[in-house]
Amino acid sequence: MDISDSGTAKLASEKTKRRRSGGRAGNERGRGPSVAQLPWSLPQYNDAPIEPLAAESIENIHDGAMRVLEEIGIEFLHPKAVDILRREGCTVLDDGVTVRMGRDFVMEKIALAPSSFDIVPRNPDRTITVGGRQMLVGQVGSPPNYSNLDEGRKSGNYKAFTDFIKMTQYFNCLHFVSGYPVEPVDVHASIRHLDGMRDKLVLTDKVCHAYSLGTERIEDQMEMVRLAGGLSHEEFEAKPRMFTNINSTSPLKHDWPMLDGAMRMAERNQPTVVSPFTLSGAMAPVTIAGAVAQQTAEGLAGIALLQCVRAGSPAVYGSFTSNVDMRTGSPAFGTPEYMRACQMSGQMARYYKLPLRASNTCAANYPDGQAAWESAFSLWGVVTGQTNMIYHGAGWLEGGLCASYEKFIMDCEMLQQMQHYVKPVPVTEDDIAVEAIRDVGAGGHFFGTQHTQDRYEEAFYKPFLSDWSNYENWEDNGALRTEQRANGIWKSILAEYEEPPIDGDAKAALDEFVAKRKQEGGAPTDF
Amino acid sequence: MDISDSGTAKLASEKTKRRRSGGRAGNERGRGPSVAQLPWSLPQYNDAPIEPLAAESIENIHDGAMRVLEEIGIEFLHPKAVDILRREGCTVLDDGVTVRMGRDFVMEKIALAPSSFDIVPRNPDRTITVGGRQMLVGQVGSPPNYSNLDEGRKSGNYKAFTDFIKMTQYFNCLHFVSGYPVEPVDVHASIRHLDGMRDKLVLTDKVCHAYSLGTERIEDQMEMVRLAGGLSHEEFEAKPRMFTNINSTSPLKHDWPMLDGAMRMAERNQPTVVSPFTLSGAMAPVTIAGAVAQQTAEGLAGIALLQCVRAGSPAVYGSFTSNVDMRTGSPAFGTPEYMRACQMSGQMARYYKLPLRASNTCAANYPDGQAAWESAFSLWGVVTGQTNMIYHGAGWLEGGLCASYEKFIMDCEMLQQMQHYVKPVPVTEDDIAVEAIRDVGAGGHFFGTQHTQDRYEEAFYKPFLSDWSNYENWEDNGALRTEQRANGIWKSILAEYEEPPIDGDAKAALDEFVAKRKQEGGAPTDF
Repeated sequence: MDISDSGTAKLASEKTKRRRSGGRAGNERGRGPSVAQLPWSLPQYNDAPIEPLAAESIENIHDGAMRVLEEIGIEFLHPKAVDILRREGCTVLDDGVTVRMGRDFVMEKIALAPSSFDIVPRNPDRTITVGGRQMLVGQVGSPPNYSNLDEGRKSGNYKAFTDFIKMTQYFNCLHFVSGYPVEPVDVHASIRHLDGMRDKLVLTDKVCHAYSLGTERIEDQMEMVRLAGGLSHEEFEAKPRMFTNINSTSPLKHDWPMLDGAMRMAERNQPTVVSPFTLSGAMAPVTIAGAVAQQTAEGLAGIALLQCVRAGSPAVYGSFTSNVDMRTGSPAFGTPEYMRACQMSGQMARYYKLPLRASNTCAANYPDGQAAWESAFSLWGVVTGQTNMIYHGAGWLEGGLCASYEKFIMDCEMLQQMQHYVKPVPVTEDDIAVEAIRDVGAGGHFFGTQHTQDRYEEAFYKPFLSDWSNYENWEDNGALRTEQRANGIWKSILAEYEEPPIDGDAKAALDEFVAKRKQEGGAPTDF
Repeated sequence: MDISDSGTAKLASEKTKRRRSGGRAGNERGRGPSVAQLPWSLPQYNDAPIEPLAAESIENIHDGAMRVLEEIGIEFLHPKAVDILRREGCTVLDDGVTVRMGRDFVMEKIALAPSSFDIVPRNPDRTITVGGRQMLVGQVGSPPNYSNLDEGRKSGNYKAFTDFIKMTQYFNCLHFVSGYPVEPVDVHASIRHLDGMRDKLVLTDKVCHAYSLGTERIEDQMEMVRLAGGLSHEEFEAKPRMFTNINSTSPLKHDWPMLDGAMRMAERNQPTVVSPFTLSGAMAPVTIAGAVAQQTAEGLAGIALLQCVRAGSPAVYGSFTSNVDMRTGSPAFGTPEYMRACQMSGQMARYYKLPLRASNTCAANYPDGQAAWESAFSLWGVVTGQTNMIYHGAGWLEGGLCASYEKFIMDCEMLQQMQHYVKPVPVTEDDIAVEAIRDVGAGGHFFGTQHTQDRYEEAFYKPFLSDWSNYENWEDNGALRTEQRANGIWKSILAEYEEPPIDGDAKAALDEFVAKRKQEGGAPTDF
């Protein structure tokens, strides 16, 4: 059973009840307050991507990245990683951490990574395909704060964490569960990964991200995904079941906890997204071409390492290149430069035949016009770059420092519209409709004609948050701004939310594991 | 002298004064409250357009449009138009108004229209090129109401009209002055075109639109443009100096006042944009392909007529196709369907080698998140369709029923970002920056490196409305939403505004003409 559908059904009956009792529905058109959403689907890009780089420029950026790897090198702050790369013939400098790798080695290794792969979560109906023309979206990950119109802005906590996880499950436009939608800082860091992953696995049935924060955490999380799926160790490793993301510490450095997690994931055939943190002007060159070259060098270095750990293990080329405000150093998001970086990253990822990850970002502090246009610009950059995994798809505010309940709803409206947009436009003879135009004639109206009657239910995208009523009706309904309407919607969603079904034995095994690991003290917190 | 530059210079000195006197500037970064804007330029599209239609589908839509013209016909509610088309060999039905035209005739006629042309206003430095890869933007036109955060929503008046005209002059991202930014309904309809055009010509020095609302109005407006430019009649006709826009009354009808105006403009070599009002599901088929086919038929019929009036007179293929909410009949804007219609219209316009017009639209009632994403979506549809004339670029709200002061400012921020975005991304060896990456090394920072120092001033787009400060600073500065910041900016702009220079004799001749025509009673209002 698809929980989202059952939620919709429940909503419909609630709406009917309210109407019968004379209560007012969510707006003047008699719709309920929450979401008549698009069905679960895996949208595909059908248009050509936007490609700002000429073929020669792709080669030049590639050459720049290769020169960085060959002549400068990347620091790998993990002895095992350095040993592996040394054995593969890379040059390790006297500092024992800087590794230089030749372009032949890099290209040979990354060619081993699949250009497309499936990830199968505990509910196989939620399997996603990463790569090719596939568009997938996950919710915001890792903000330390959350906000909503009722509470204002607060430090992250467990309640807010579960609220966002429930909304992530609810929306069909979200395909995977990314990092913590907000850090539950009231859960001790030693056991946060246990409670966090447990809730992701129980409150959702979608593909889950696991943090690469050292040995114990990643091993615990892999075990939890295995248990939740009722899988043997062999079954777990047979397919990607989850994924992680690692960020290089730009410029030119991969840190221990992330390398450790990613290598352990690769050993067991689980995917890693490698996303350099290349803010142009700060941790990367002030030119977008330079930032993308550096991003490519850092990313490919990580992916090459993972292919040494296990040839053919899945990996994703991650783009997080944006720019900073040169007056203040503040990161900027959803800028023209950000869009171009997404599109250029798409060209590089396709050049290397790797899936692409990018993000729905903004710098705004409130879910207002700026937040909407920065996210819309981000999303168009991401979509026209043909990003396979769209991180931070819903809820991101303040350059990632805050998860907003209202922004989450606003983003899902935008995401639904984009997922509708990417579908091919039908252009059959019936669609061109000469006979309908003849039927209606000059000065007529198309509402009543058979051509319209046959199609009007499904003709156009139907929004759940946009208010298309006229000014007078909008005013009569309280003159609510977008974020105020979104506020009502997330409350309805949380009220309607139901846990997706999970096998009783699997859940018991999962809970038993969490209890045992908590009793053991969880993971060390001193790295 | 460019008035915008002088405005900026004045702002800088104001800011210095405020700082010296200890006053607080507009935000925490010490910037003034108004606009450090991009310089005047004519932006070019450099990317490939997004093209949802396969070549065969373009042919099929063309064939559909031609069948509408050949088999069904278009009503021309103007005897002169019908006479012209009859003489050219078209079939006039017994009703005396429905004209059927063969595809050979249509294609032969529209081939006479230029694919690109210049319009030269009274200040030749403001000349615009319409067609090719040129992107041009005008402000919102024709709403009956206006709104701002101080007054709320009101019926249009002369004061608001001039405010918007001044803002249109101020912003370099706006290239032409479209229809009345809000109807000055306190000016009698018989003389509104006189006061309206007089103010457009004096308060701005950009290319101006004239309404095609019957004989007297269009003749008056042409004469005023001629006088303001100090032109002889021959000089006026030698080049396009202004433009008009006509809307067919969809489905399949061109009305008298607009046909009359457009034919008079064509006689004198002045351009007409033909924009069918094809709302899919209401005045056009419920399928986007059908609506675009009908739009094409209605548009080409008008352009073919104008080529009969004067071969080679400039014309623009106008797209206004959007969809309606099928539950309520309300028009919807900035939808996925709207974007696709823009892109498909771009393909049709290029097929016919005609410039394209489309619009920055939204259905929202307040300048909030919905307004921003609907406009951002519209603009991406318009930009990826490679629209030459972007109508309603700044200020549109409520499906065109309201001009918003704050939305105007928000739109100009988005427009500036898009005009920055469309520039080519530099990818020289210096841009790829391997040496800068080497200089900085692992764990370093790019702020201080020479590569950054040489470029940081102009490296990235600088917004004037977006607030990139962190949450704490944003809160300290009053926690202003985007539209609240925009409210401060338009007030500064109106305070700073100065009239552009105009030749004294030309201004006197213009004022004399207006006075004379007012004395004569203006234009009849009974059509």
